[in-house]
Amino acid sequence: MRKTLSYDTTKKAEVIPISEDLKKIVAESKVKNGTLIAYSLHTTLGLMIQEAVEQYLCEDIIDQLTKIVDDDGEKYKHTCARHPSGTCKNDDVNGPSHIRQLLCNQNVLIDIKDGEMNLGRWQDVAILEFDGPRKERKILVKIVED
Amino acid sequence: MRKTLSYDTTKKAEVIPISEDLKKIVAESKVKNGTLIAYSLHTTLGLMIQEAVEQYLCEDIIDQLTKIVDDDGEKYKHTCARHPSGTCKNDDVNGPSHIRQLLCNQNVLIDIKDGEMNLGRWQDVAILEFDGPRKERKILVKIVED
Amino acid sequence: MRKTLSYDTTKKAEVIPISEDLKKIVAESKVKNGTLIAYSLHTTLGLMIQEAVEQYLCEDIIDQLTKIVDDDGEKYKHTCARHPSGTCKNDDVNGPSHIRQLLCNQNVLIDIKDGEMNLGRWQDVAILEFDGPRKERKILVKIVED
Repeated sequence: MRKTLSYDTTKKAEVIPISEDLKKIVAESKVKNGTLIAYSLHTTLGLMIQEAVEQYLCEDIIDQLTKIVDDDGEKYKHTCARHPSGTCKNDDVNGPSHIRQLLCNQNVLIDIKDGEMNLGRWQDVAILEFDGPRKERKILVKIVED
Repeated sequence: MRKTLSYDTTKKAEVIPISEDLKKIVAESKVKNGTLIAYSLHTTLGLMIQEAVEQYLCEDIIDQLTKIVDDDGEKYKHTCARHPSGTCKNDDVNGPSHIRQLLCNQNVLIDIKDGEMNLGRWQDVAILEFDGPRKERKILVKIVED
Repeated sequence: MRKTLSYDTTKKAEVIPISEDLKKIVAESKVKNGTLIAYSLHTTLGLMIQEAVEQYLCEDIIDQLTKIVDDDGEKYKHTCARHPSGTCKNDDVNGPSHIRQLLCNQNVLIDIKDGEMNLGRWQDVAILEFDGPRKERKILVKIVED
């Protein structure tokens, strides 16, 4: 079973919890024992398992990633317009957004046990937007029965 | 086949190799060709594949992650007590521990070939404790036959 | 289906796109619906999904990782010769290469749909060499049918 989740983001950088959406997909699948695979279909949008419903932690994450990979345009060479396909005209410097995504995770793997996601007490799944606001940011979700 | 490994950690931050424990689970499973999935059930405990039996490298890893994400309490807003569930009373600032975990990996995926983990010569699996000492830190291990 | 890709790298640090090689393996497998798992068999070689055919972004990634984890030998204790197996005589300080690998990804997981890798428009797969030049850097690729 394969499904795509889509989110409109509203800020340059933000964390949006999506565990509730994943729970619905698991329930729909009727899979009792299996594995959920989910991954971001974008290069500036991450996916993580963290204490993601605690909004202050999410702010700390964004703050620290912005400190670790700073926004000083002088340092970065990448623009989307430099992609060899030539199909992107955007010459904004968004290298930092890509590198922040690389430092985080891009996929999650979750065991499904007795029809539920087998996560720890404080674990939730969330997307990490690093280059918003953007419309229709997509996460592919796949459930494979054991 | 599903199994949970549990570890008591003894320091604030440490790396503990667990390849030997995984090998036992692979042997018990009697799976000859399959995939091992393992992931941390905590938000301040990572899991990685690295040259993890070389203790000096493990110290370097902890040192560098502590440098990259520093411990200056002024910078972080998160405390466990701020979790919306209201079930945690701990107001220690452990944001850095969460962010260090995010920068590392939270899961590992390993091919099982001829009944053994298919890893490179220098690769071992280890947990990364960032918020210890803690009792019963859990790793979920799942083996799926091809 | 299991296959190993092998690359000779030519620089200390570089990004090499490998999507075309993965596409060939997917085609050979004749799998229409499945999952591709690939991972690095080395501890100083990463694997990522990013806008990896844009070479300037790849340079930014290497530059930033070199900034985040610097090369100052005084800071690092690890040498390969310290591995408890005693089989490595190399006493070069390459701790930074290991830690850069840890900050990136070591594996990728990709859905196969209608016989093709189900990736976003800007997503490509690439290896990240952090300790080259080296011969025969290996990536394990496995395709499991749904």
